[in-house]
Amino acid sequence: MGHRLADASAPARLAAPGEGIGPDELALAARNHGLPLETLRHDVTPPGLHYVLTHYDIPHVPDGTPWRLTVGGRVRRPLSLTPADLASFPRVTTRVTLECAGNGRALLSPRPVSQPWLEGAVGTAEWTGVPLRLLLAEASVRDGAVDVVFTGADHGVERGVEQDYQRALPLEVATGDDPEVLVAYAMNGSPLPPQHGHPLRLVVPGWYGMAHVKWLRDVTVADEPFTGFQQTVAYRLRQRPEEVGEPVTRIAPRALLVPPGFPDFMSRARMLRPGPVALEGRAWSGFAAVTRVEVSTDAGASWREAELGPEDGHRWAWRRWRHPWTATPGTYELAARATDADGRTQPLEQPWNRGGFANNAVQRVPVVCLDA
Amino acid sequence: MGHRLADASAPARLAAPGEGIGPDELALAARNHGLPLETLRHDVTPPGLHYVLTHYDIPHVPDGTPWRLTVGGRVRRPLSLTPADLASFPRVTTRVTLECAGNGRALLSPRPVSQPWLEGAVGTAEWTGVPLRLLLAEASVRDGAVDVVFTGADHGVERGVEQDYQRALPLEVATGDDPEVLVAYAMNGSPLPPQHGHPLRLVVPGWYGMAHVKWLRDVTVADEPFTGFQQTVAYRLRQRPEEVGEPVTRIAPRALLVPPGFPDFMSRARMLRPGPVALEGRAWSGFAAVTRVEVSTDAGASWREAELGPEDGHRWAWRRWRHPWTATPGTYELAARATDADGRTQPLEQPWNRGGFANNAVQRVPVVCLDA
Repeated sequence: MGHRLADASAPARLAAPGEGIGPDELALAARNHGLPLETLRHDVTPPGLHYVLTHYDIPHVPDGTPWRLTVGGRVRRPLSLTPADLASFPRVTTRVTLECAGNGRALLSPRPVSQPWLEGAVGTAEWTGVPLRLLLAEASVRDGAVDVVFTGADHGVERGVEQDYQRALPLEVATGDDPEVLVAYAMNGSPLPPQHGHPLRLVVPGWYGMAHVKWLRDVTVADEPFTGFQQTVAYRLRQRPEEVGEPVTRIAPRALLVPPGFPDFMSRARMLRPGPVALEGRAWSGFAAVTRVEVSTDAGASWREAELGPEDGHRWAWRRWRHPWTATPGTYELAARATDADGRTQPLEQPWNRGGFANNAVQRVPVVCLDA
Repeated sequence: MGHRLADASAPARLAAPGEGIGPDELALAARNHGLPLETLRHDVTPPGLHYVLTHYDIPHVPDGTPWRLTVGGRVRRPLSLTPADLASFPRVTTRVTLECAGNGRALLSPRPVSQPWLEGAVGTAEWTGVPLRLLLAEASVRDGAVDVVFTGADHGVERGVEQDYQRALPLEVATGDDPEVLVAYAMNGSPLPPQHGHPLRLVVPGWYGMAHVKWLRDVTVADEPFTGFQQTVAYRLRQRPEEVGEPVTRIAPRALLVPPGFPDFMSRARMLRPGPVALEGRAWSGFAAVTRVEVSTDAGASWREAELGPEDGHRWAWRRWRHPWTATPGTYELAARATDADGRTQPLEQPWNRGGFANNAVQRVPVVCLDA
């Protein structure tokens, strides 16, 4: 009997009706983690609270480990850079709200079996690094280039395919400055933590997390569209498995509410006492600035405008919003809905696809206002 | 119809045979997180990788928020201290391996329904703070004191009981110096992160995590044994619900192995290629120093001695161990077992109790060595 990769790696599937979270989903949920929603109160997510998703293992890169970022393919001057070399390029710091493409997956019905995110797979950090366009200019991209492929040091198997994690960006995105893609070496002013890509990662403001390749070790300019696993098999929007599907790219608009009151330990059910409640939260979109947030306290039957926080110049980060409410005894379903400058908004019904990507259905927060 | 706490807070229960992880357990798993086992390679767990368990919400304490730690009850000189006041007391830094009492719960059969930990609810940090015994000496404990009660700022409901998180230590532990209990204000040389108790927490080296009260705001010396929820209802070892049960206190011995090779994304199944493999991991016990680690590559049928890392003076932190192995194609179940200086060791069969506490059954890591 042979021992082959394919024996350990099952195809994608949907959970059966009523099927609980299985041991494989639990193993992912225990490793990866979301943002506890009460910490949406921070403009910049404190260390350790930002969501983390690692496809395989976190590579072990102790301080002092030699590290090279190579830039090659269809370029005139291939580069091999240490992290110290990167410090000699211009440095840019950008505040970025980063969200996993699978955020909201475990709320879908039927549930795609994968990392079972609820709604917390998000976080905001200040990323510092070198604009990718400057590195590509230094390497001098040749004519005919179409895609730029990024390879991380994380290694594993998905659906029978052994791989280093790889994703590509179209050349015009990789060399553009809106958003300005970074090869980042610092997060919130400190070297990258291991789980966020130490020593180097890509940051693609406005795009879902799968584009922000961690433990970045190679950039290859290609003259054909990249067809790697994470580009053409995973991270596509499909209704049926045989579809080619649309690629997952930018972050769909979303508002999240800080659940008010206090929780029951086990159920996380929320309770509060009668009186004024400052409902608050954050909203973001990878397509255009958020221009409107509406709040409902009656499960979406009626909506009121929330007050947006001031524009603070952080185009790629979430925006604060507030809405005063006076709670009286009863049961409520709170909700918030973001709309961006392009008119994109959030659906009330789930936008289902087989991968469970980009589910920006409106968050619903049941609360009980207790008797006085 | 009234709106009462009890309606939102269900009694403890065990999962039915074959019952998958439910939405309530998933909500806890998505917030709280374990240590990804590959990061056992770090002597001190990097920020954000240390396990986190929060019973309720993480209190929001922005920098500059006034904070007082009160010390009262059966004392001659009640204290009210700011974090800055604490800096005028002698400062101690201790490297501590901290483990959740519920680590391993989700591996139990039947499964107690609560935070569904696998085996990663552990981490090691350098905690800096004031020895509690010095604060109690300053307050001057009166005769007749038996327990010292610690109250955090985290507020919620458990099984119908609304509470601030509270736990007590016997007076002799609170005033002892082996272990030396700390009121900690720094973790790995930086102010405590929000999820680890900012601005102050208790650290009780050798004890499970429930004793290390976070967001600490009050210390009360009591002349009767403390009967709060977390002391007498939760965190007891019981076979049947009606038992009083033994209290959960110190950390039972455990060894964990860094799973070798590389994973399948979805199943986390491990694969490696034929050749030498340096099996490695950590081992700890809250009762006495770890003196022996054994490794099995045949599901516990045979055991070999692992090589322990040097004694490094960090009595309350995990100890490194290594064991060389040469993998040939086939399927294996790896295991490691720690024994401490008191002769305590790990069981091969689950030590079951209704709360799912202190499950230190030997870890089992299936791996497939692929054909060459």
